[in-house]
Amino acid sequence: MAEKFIALRNLRFLLYEHLDTAALTRHPYFADHSKETFDMVLETAMRMGRGILFPALSEMDKKPPEFRDGRVFVHPVVATVMKACGEGGWIGAQAPYDVGGQQIPNTIMTAFRGIFSAANYSASVYPFLTTGAAHLILSFGARELVDTYVPKMFAGQWQGTMALTEPQAGSSLTDLKTTAHPTAGGYYHIKGQKIFISCSDYESIGNVVNLLIARIEGAPPGVKGISLFVVPKKRPDSQGGLTGNDVTCIGIYHKLGYRGAPITQLAFGDGNDCRGWLVGEPHKGLRYMFQMMNEARVDVGMGAAAIASAAYCASLEYARQRPQGRPIAGKDPLAPQVPIIEHADVKRMLLFQRAVVEGSLSLIFQCAQYVDLALVTQGEEKERYELLLDLLTPIAKSYPSEMGILSVSQGLQCLGGYGYCDEFPLEQYYRDVRIHPIHEGTTGIQGMDLLGRKVVMKNGKAFLLYLAELEKAIAAARAIPDCASSAEALAAAVETLKATTASLTSLAMKGEIELFLADATLYLDFFGLITVAWQWLLQAVTAAKALAANTDAADADFYRGKIQTCRYFFAYELPKISGLAARLKASGDGLTVAMKPEWFD
Amino acid sequence: MAEKFIALRNLRFLLYEHLDTAALTRHPYFADHSKETFDMVLETAMRMGRGILFPALSEMDKKPPEFRDGRVFVHPVVATVMKACGEGGWIGAQAPYDVGGQQIPNTIMTAFRGIFSAANYSASVYPFLTTGAAHLILSFGARELVDTYVPKMFAGQWQGTMALTEPQAGSSLTDLKTTAHPTAGGYYHIKGQKIFISCSDYESIGNVVNLLIARIEGAPPGVKGISLFVVPKKRPDSQGGLTGNDVTCIGIYHKLGYRGAPITQLAFGDGNDCRGWLVGEPHKGLRYMFQMMNEARVDVGMGAAAIASAAYCASLEYARQRPQGRPIAGKDPLAPQVPIIEHADVKRMLLFQRAVVEGSLSLIFQCAQYVDLALVTQGEEKERYELLLDLLTPIAKSYPSEMGILSVSQGLQCLGGYGYCDEFPLEQYYRDVRIHPIHEGTTGIQGMDLLGRKVVMKNGKAFLLYLAELEKAIAAARAIPDCASSAEALAAAVETLKATTASLTSLAMKGEIELFLADATLYLDFFGLITVAWQWLLQAVTAAKALAANTDAADADFYRGKIQTCRYFFAYELPKISGLAARLKASGDGLTVAMKPEWFD
Repeated sequence: MAEKFIALRNLRFLLYEHLDTAALTRHPYFADHSKETFDMVLETAMRMGRGILFPALSEMDKKPPEFRDGRVFVHPVVATVMKACGEGGWIGAQAPYDVGGQQIPNTIMTAFRGIFSAANYSASVYPFLTTGAAHLILSFGARELVDTYVPKMFAGQWQGTMALTEPQAGSSLTDLKTTAHPTAGGYYHIKGQKIFISCSDYESIGNVVNLLIARIEGAPPGVKGISLFVVPKKRPDSQGGLTGNDVTCIGIYHKLGYRGAPITQLAFGDGNDCRGWLVGEPHKGLRYMFQMMNEARVDVGMGAAAIASAAYCASLEYARQRPQGRPIAGKDPLAPQVPIIEHADVKRMLLFQRAVVEGSLSLIFQCAQYVDLALVTQGEEKERYELLLDLLTPIAKSYPSEMGILSVSQGLQCLGGYGYCDEFPLEQYYRDVRIHPIHEGTTGIQGMDLLGRKVVMKNGKAFLLYLAELEKAIAAARAIPDCASSAEALAAAVETLKATTASLTSLAMKGEIELFLADATLYLDFFGLITVAWQWLLQAVTAAKALAANTDAADADFYRGKIQTCRYFFAYELPKISGLAARLKASGDGLTVAMKPEWFD
Repeated sequence: MAEKFIALRNLRFLLYEHLDTAALTRHPYFADHSKETFDMVLETAMRMGRGILFPALSEMDKKPPEFRDGRVFVHPVVATVMKACGEGGWIGAQAPYDVGGQQIPNTIMTAFRGIFSAANYSASVYPFLTTGAAHLILSFGARELVDTYVPKMFAGQWQGTMALTEPQAGSSLTDLKTTAHPTAGGYYHIKGQKIFISCSDYESIGNVVNLLIARIEGAPPGVKGISLFVVPKKRPDSQGGLTGNDVTCIGIYHKLGYRGAPITQLAFGDGNDCRGWLVGEPHKGLRYMFQMMNEARVDVGMGAAAIASAAYCASLEYARQRPQGRPIAGKDPLAPQVPIIEHADVKRMLLFQRAVVEGSLSLIFQCAQYVDLALVTQGEEKERYELLLDLLTPIAKSYPSEMGILSVSQGLQCLGGYGYCDEFPLEQYYRDVRIHPIHEGTTGIQGMDLLGRKVVMKNGKAFLLYLAELEKAIAAARAIPDCASSAEALAAAVETLKATTASLTSLAMKGEIELFLADATLYLDFFGLITVAWQWLLQAVTAAKALAANTDAADADFYRGKIQTCRYFFAYELPKISGLAARLKASGDGLTVAMKPEWFD
């Protein structure tokens, strides 16, 4: 049976053949696991995806959350999902044993989350947002905070959120105004408003634990004065019960897609009785929050890749079944029509989708593996993984998000008029996937992060480590006949990357910061294409080796498809870097900087 | 006041400065008109757009057509629009005086339609689909058909449609099955089903006139056996009344966007009493239909450009008003925030939108002018305009449609999270604009039309005429300092276009038709970028000349903006051709053709 939303065969390829995730179990931290337990995780996720999440996909879209009398009502499947994820231990699976986790590798949990997101993105957000919030408390919170909140969150009884954005601030965290006033009771009084907070209020959950950033009175201005707090919807009282904590939902947004999850506007302390508990030290909140944010950014990339995967599966199924037209060279009108998958242009649209989906997944798993390896290594090696992860996070967030939109759009296009109608899921995927270049830092923000921070940090150390990874892949691919020409193309792209980066950083060194960053979004696109080309080359090398050893016909088709999709990427996608490089080399002309607002009149 | 959906100043620039539409009035056919009457048309359209259409935009989306008891109910504003367009003479304005028209140039009516479409795309479809259907009857129908139908259609009392698509056929018109059985009464009995028919049934209209293609019994197979019929919902009877014509609406589609117009599924002759009247000669229906289709394709381009224009206006207004962040070089957290239009990346997103919107409009008006000039010229000159129009029609349809999606997406992105919510119109525009690469021939079909038919027709005559137009523009621009470097860039692009086209046609000459057309969609993108670069160069030349002569500050800003947007196009958009050309030169490798369906397993 064709998969409806994500190809398990491909996940297994990426995890076990491309990355050798099973080798992680050689490290003591993961020693209790094996490929068999990993497979069990994947199969459980597929079963839950098929049985619980996917069947609710369309209905959650058509019956979005309702806000009535100050209360938020969500689809009943949410309670089922939170219960199943809590009882199954999935929310906390990645955490250490001593706090109730199972020390499952991040790579495997990323696959788990990817399967959920492909089956039903909105539904997947509830449990895994809880995971992120709980990890943040675990990492930086006092023992008491951990004990009070984390077990309930891991059990799926309490929802976790991240509460950052404010009406006047948006992407500019410098400008946030929510205040925290210290009290003698060890807690702070919180006052302010937050907007665009996912899953932060709904009836069918026991409690909501907001990880909120605010400014302690008297804190330094700007991002250096931001602290992190736990601000629950209901606070635990001395009798072991829960008391209202003066956190009010004042509205929910009506959105283009991603409609199964409520995005709310929250008021804290309107009645002067909202309590928050400081996480870690004062004024270090932004740094703490960024741990969660970085995890969340890779997760957003996965969300986008997962939705694009579901769209690819749906359009592939349609293309196999829908007869229309005839081979271009023999247009006998009396001959029977052929399935549209026979047409070159449809194959191109499918190859594009596959290139985006499987290229994105490959990159995301690469990042996830760096997380795991950084956890179990030390010193220089650990730093290497951390730096590579830091560098690649904005790409892992943005490439899938931006290209996922185009990929879903091509999926929709394969269905023609039917793609535009709600009898098929493509139109929903098209709406759902559009959130990803926006939340957890817009694409513009990611571009500035990549060029303005990551590429230049530690004198370009992360960038050089990245180049070394590419060189290694190129060297390996040169030896494989099926991959040699792609290896040369990537080698040429690496030279373009070096030259373009040098040209841009020379602007920074001259102090021309605005010019340096003016085309950061294009640099992100450019870097993303090269990065995903690297991942495709690695995949093709693996597939070519497997094909050489393999005589099983079904798997041979899979590997041939991988190699052909890699060829597609190098023939159709990677050449896009030349236009981008041409512009980036000219960034010093400051074309956009020079554009005056009044010239738009 | 900033325009809410389309900039009248820009329309006047394109019509009077870029194209000199007023010069049309030197031809006897248009002699009764003047720039003043043209201005009146534009102002009327803006008034109707502001007063009737735009206010209903969101409501028509939120309350889409309903199908109850076999009847279709649409928003009440539709009746107002049809009445106003009929009584004002707008539906038939372009037609000759002797059939009740006003001989207004196509260029001006295109602007009129553009204004309507920008104000409310769904609402604009009702009157202008009627125009297209009426023109088709006028062009090829017998006098009696004209007299029976056209006046009622021009008066806005009867709706016109085009009924082509069938469930089993889609884009493959060869496979249509609707039949027409001749009778002694001079009419045919029609039997069959049509799908995806816009505006083909609703309660608040007097009648619906379907222009339908069907196969007369015994007709040759394939597209050579297709005839065109008028098949009204109710047929005029001998008493001057109307009788049901056995045309049944059996369902409406629930769509991603474009929700204000009902798209129906129609059954003809389920009761064996559906009559159709042949238009023109038997078996020539496809040729006739293509007249309407070609008009409709440019109209689709306008629809996309118009929606992108409205999205641009909305995001520009937001960017001017929304404070967030600070100049990159001076991040004092205590300094006030600046409007986001001050940020280079936001300016880039606005420039991209303007480049797409105004580049598309320029091309569409260029095509519209060819229609007008072909009408009033003869012989060689007439043929030249017709060939240029033929060649450019697939570009005028597809460039705005494909790029319009990206343009609206960047508009949405300017608003961040708010762009994703329905408080602002961006999310609706994002849904609405997605229809355009699908209807009236998908982008894939347009690519095949351009490369497989238009570029090679008459031994490449149209293509050579097009190259001559580009050379002319380049020569003129070389003399203007502000445009000289863009002129050189376009000259280089023309060389790439020639070489790429020659490389592809050499495949056709070798009989490798499948390889020749495998990347036709990419060729369309490639050709479109060069074509719109040509239009931007023409605009910049006009603006530079005006700026040299102009001392009025407000207009100077407008012209400077034009020149800077042209620079943007040449710096950021045109370079994309290099990646496309690289792939197109390699098309002979047949990468997509070689991909086997089973490799997608």
